[in-house]
Amino acid sequence: MAQTAYDTDNIFAKILRGEIPSHRVYEDDAVVAFMDVMPQGPGHTLVVPKTPSRNLLDAAPSTFGPLFTVVQKVALAVKKALDADGVTILQFNEPASGQTVYHLHVHVIPRFDGIPLKPHTGAMEKPEVLAENAEKIRAALSAKS
Amino acid sequence: MAQTAYDTDNIFAKILRGEIPSHRVYEDDAVVAFMDVMPQGPGHTLVVPKTPSRNLLDAAPSTFGPLFTVVQKVALAVKKALDADGVTILQFNEPASGQTVYHLHVHVIPRFDGIPLKPHTGAMEKPEVLAENAEKIRAALSAKS
Repeated sequence: MAQTAYDTDNIFAKILRGEIPSHRVYEDDAVVAFMDVMPQGPGHTLVVPKTPSRNLLDAAPSTFGPLFTVVQKVALAVKKALDADGVTILQFNEPASGQTVYHLHVHVIPRFDGIPLKPHTGAMEKPEVLAENAEKIRAALSAKS
Repeated sequence: MAQTAYDTDNIFAKILRGEIPSHRVYEDDAVVAFMDVMPQGPGHTLVVPKTPSRNLLDAAPSTFGPLFTVVQKVALAVKKALDADGVTILQFNEPASGQTVYHLHVHVIPRFDGIPLKPHTGAMEKPEVLAENAEKIRAALSAKS
């Protein structure tokens, strides 16, 4: 059951520290959300706790309430912003599951009737597309409540 | 953003009320976990809050801490019980996302290096296989602290 230790130089740790830019759509004391640069569909957003853990398996249970409260906010916002029909939530643990960045993160992906989820190809989205979707999602988040 | 109302006769509501049998591996005041009868891999377990909601989009945020604390317990247990290399967490919202039962549930799926996730085929697993995996997962859960 032993897990590899947390690497403080993973790319999401660098994003959280502001060392690498991201298209942020949400931030509070515990959680940040930003656009996935290799989206499996338009509006694909990542929700990330600030507290370091490798993945869900080694996270402090106190992480989950704040984290998934934001996952819900972001899910409702991407559904509204992209005029989607549904939302898929994915969370991968260890390479066998497809995890590629070793800081706990939750994928929030807008879904559309009849359109299958795109595979994770590793292709980068254009920055202007990410910026445009981020702006729509921020607007949907601020319109809520 | 309007969602269809919760249907109290969905199959997970019936399982929670004990009207339909299931291979339960865990239960506390807020959450139940049982084997998926149409698994996408051996040990595929569902974690379900007792409080009714259609999916993650309309759940009370207070649901998430207790729910994902159990998702973590079950993820660690299935990884140990099935000697898996990783764990995939899936949660579907609305038909466009692949949701087929309209009570919030989280899929916890053991993963093995080099073996892709099986598609959701709708094929029923043999009850004796589900019972055997459930027993292994219960043992792993009770062995943990």
